[in-house]
Amino acid sequence: MDKPFASRTRAVKRSEIRELLKLAERPEVISLAGGFPDPVTFPHEEFAEIAARVLREDYQRALQYGVTEGDRLLRGAVRDWLAQDGLELSLDEITITSASQQGLDLVGKVFLDRGDVVFCDLPTYLAAIQMFTAYGAEKVGIPQQEDGMDLDILERRIAEALQRGKRPKLIYLVPDFHNPTGITMSLAKRRRVLEIAERYNLLIIEDDPYSKLRFAGEPLPPIKSLDRSGRVVFLRTFSKTLCPGIRVGLMAASAEITDQIVKLKQPTDLCSPPLTQRLAYEFMTHYDFAGHIAEIQRIYREKRDAMLEALEEYMPRHPGISWTHPQGGFFVWLTLPEFVDTREMFPQAVERRVAYVVGQAFFVDGSGRNTMRLSYSEPSPELIREGIRRLAGVIEEEITVAPAGAVS
Amino acid sequence: MDKPFASRTRAVKRSEIRELLKLAERPEVISLAGGFPDPVTFPHEEFAEIAARVLREDYQRALQYGVTEGDRLLRGAVRDWLAQDGLELSLDEITITSASQQGLDLVGKVFLDRGDVVFCDLPTYLAAIQMFTAYGAEKVGIPQQEDGMDLDILERRIAEALQRGKRPKLIYLVPDFHNPTGITMSLAKRRRVLEIAERYNLLIIEDDPYSKLRFAGEPLPPIKSLDRSGRVVFLRTFSKTLCPGIRVGLMAASAEITDQIVKLKQPTDLCSPPLTQRLAYEFMTHYDFAGHIAEIQRIYREKRDAMLEALEEYMPRHPGISWTHPQGGFFVWLTLPEFVDTREMFPQAVERRVAYVVGQAFFVDGSGRNTMRLSYSEPSPELIREGIRRLAGVIEEEITVAPAGAVS
Repeated sequence: MDKPFASRTRAVKRSEIRELLKLAERPEVISLAGGFPDPVTFPHEEFAEIAARVLREDYQRALQYGVTEGDRLLRGAVRDWLAQDGLELSLDEITITSASQQGLDLVGKVFLDRGDVVFCDLPTYLAAIQMFTAYGAEKVGIPQQEDGMDLDILERRIAEALQRGKRPKLIYLVPDFHNPTGITMSLAKRRRVLEIAERYNLLIIEDDPYSKLRFAGEPLPPIKSLDRSGRVVFLRTFSKTLCPGIRVGLMAASAEITDQIVKLKQPTDLCSPPLTQRLAYEFMTHYDFAGHIAEIQRIYREKRDAMLEALEEYMPRHPGISWTHPQGGFFVWLTLPEFVDTREMFPQAVERRVAYVVGQAFFVDGSGRNTMRLSYSEPSPELIREGIRRLAGVIEEEITVAPAGAVS
Repeated sequence: MDKPFASRTRAVKRSEIRELLKLAERPEVISLAGGFPDPVTFPHEEFAEIAARVLREDYQRALQYGVTEGDRLLRGAVRDWLAQDGLELSLDEITITSASQQGLDLVGKVFLDRGDVVFCDLPTYLAAIQMFTAYGAEKVGIPQQEDGMDLDILERRIAEALQRGKRPKLIYLVPDFHNPTGITMSLAKRRRVLEIAERYNLLIIEDDPYSKLRFAGEPLPPIKSLDRSGRVVFLRTFSKTLCPGIRVGLMAASAEITDQIVKLKQPTDLCSPPLTQRLAYEFMTHYDFAGHIAEIQRIYREKRDAMLEALEEYMPRHPGISWTHPQGGFFVWLTLPEFVDTREMFPQAVERRVAYVVGQAFFVDGSGRNTMRLSYSEPSPELIREGIRRLAGVIEEEITVAPAGAVS
């Protein structure tokens, strides 16, 4: 048949990155591409206990349909948990989502009309870009600095969008240990971006997958905790602090916004799985969740240290080569000299049995050709060291053989 | 803040029905409204065994991110299962969804542009109506007859839509034991609706939550099994044959359509929960799934019989009162004399401690004021009998006190 697909199917492209990464699926390749959590951090023994008990004693509830906004017990536990971060919320401001990705999709459903303008970092989270595209938004990228988004440029871009007669709608941020750069937004910028959002009546989407994985430095308050006008939508997933396989996350937003989110979640999936919500609830309230998080921090800190030490040791000394020093999360961002194209270099890297994510994929303006994302979340410290050693060899070769003219 | 909600938030209304049903939440009310499966049908002991084993022995996979199209093992088991119904599929034609509701949402995402015309029964499934509204489709209702949709009227409405310069896109059907009416579409109509779809290049969305819950008569082939042009998208949930709380369903569609579905599922939720997919897979392949379904059929047959016998025994004899006799599924559809408004009657029913779903909610054209949906899935046979007895009393009173003029 002649398929009458919706126009949004033409806008959303299959990720070329995923195709590239298929090249790297051979077992001898050390992948620094992943971004998956390390399974040793999954509370699987505890989940086995909980599941066996709940499925025998309370299956009538755990296996039945649940309410769209999420299990009331879990929402209560989430409220108490978020209070530790200065977020004072009532239950009608909390929605349980099928992990943060569904939260993002619901943000698109509830807020985005075709042509609305969204502002995000250059670079930013890939699946957020895809979501914005699926809802027909115009994506405006704002350069990211060492302390987060360049807010001077943000203000200019908002003003320009208004002059063009467009409707600026929201600012998308990953303030803690950003994906893909590992950068954390400063407190001063958290305050200022909120002022800007207030001035132009924009929403802020605060995506927080990683803040609990802090290894160094002091925690910074979520932007949502500074919000007095109900314009911050806060998303957090349990994918990194428990595991991804249960698909449980949360959204905190004003009661008015939450009401719309729940209304549109209804025809999206009726409810998130009550069974996996129950696993999260029981673990949070009847096991040592804080101790579990401390242990996860220890595991990832060791891996980050391995990566930063290996980069220090192996990377060629060149003024065009630099990388970030994350205080938490999963990612280091590597910038190479301008003449290097990390996409073109990728086959050589796979040849040397190491893989990364090509940086350009994270830029809504197609820039970033000389960048890459390195993740230390999955491999062991030993493999991380060896992976960086191999990668340094590829880069060494690349910058050595570069035609002199290209360096200009 | 002044909330810049998307226009679709204004189109989708909170279900008034849900509000009404809150009235009926008192424990002394017998609810024939529900539509939830009976928890005695949930394979909870088996799930407890499976969960404990998988979480100890294969947690690295069960608790990690999965692929967007769904676990390969489960897709294989689904392929074999659907082959029993004459559906010959390859793996790249099968997607695992977070139950059928997500399948419906993805159909909207992949096929519906604002203003596209969709055709559905009068009445039809409520959350499908909400989904169509969320994607800005124009909903055209086609009267349902005893053997399914009136296809003469369907053809006329398609032609009219084309004359109006609209784009007819799809026909939504629940061919087996329809929600809300319990009606099954005849084989002749299954063939003819496919011919019509071919003539006008329309898709058919075949929603199949209930076909495995057949208590009487011979199974009919799915429309998808008759499809030679890849225009039928087939949805089935495990919510009734296993349980709703795992949120696992499946979509079978051409490889080309599946490719688009998976592309847009990616920014929607990355993947459905690998853990709950695993529960479904293990039960389907290592336990007696066929025996389990036979036992479920027995349980619901007994309840259906209780409802039909009670209707026969208690309902007032009146030419305007009739009901359907489903051969499977969860629902009986009751039609009352034209002068009765089941919404207005609802408080009296709750007063008499019985609840139903007001029929009008299922009609995209606002008709059906004298109808209601009765479900026998949740209450025991004894409560079903007593519920129908109470309901008959309310109706008796309603048709007795009606002003003579209203009967005309």
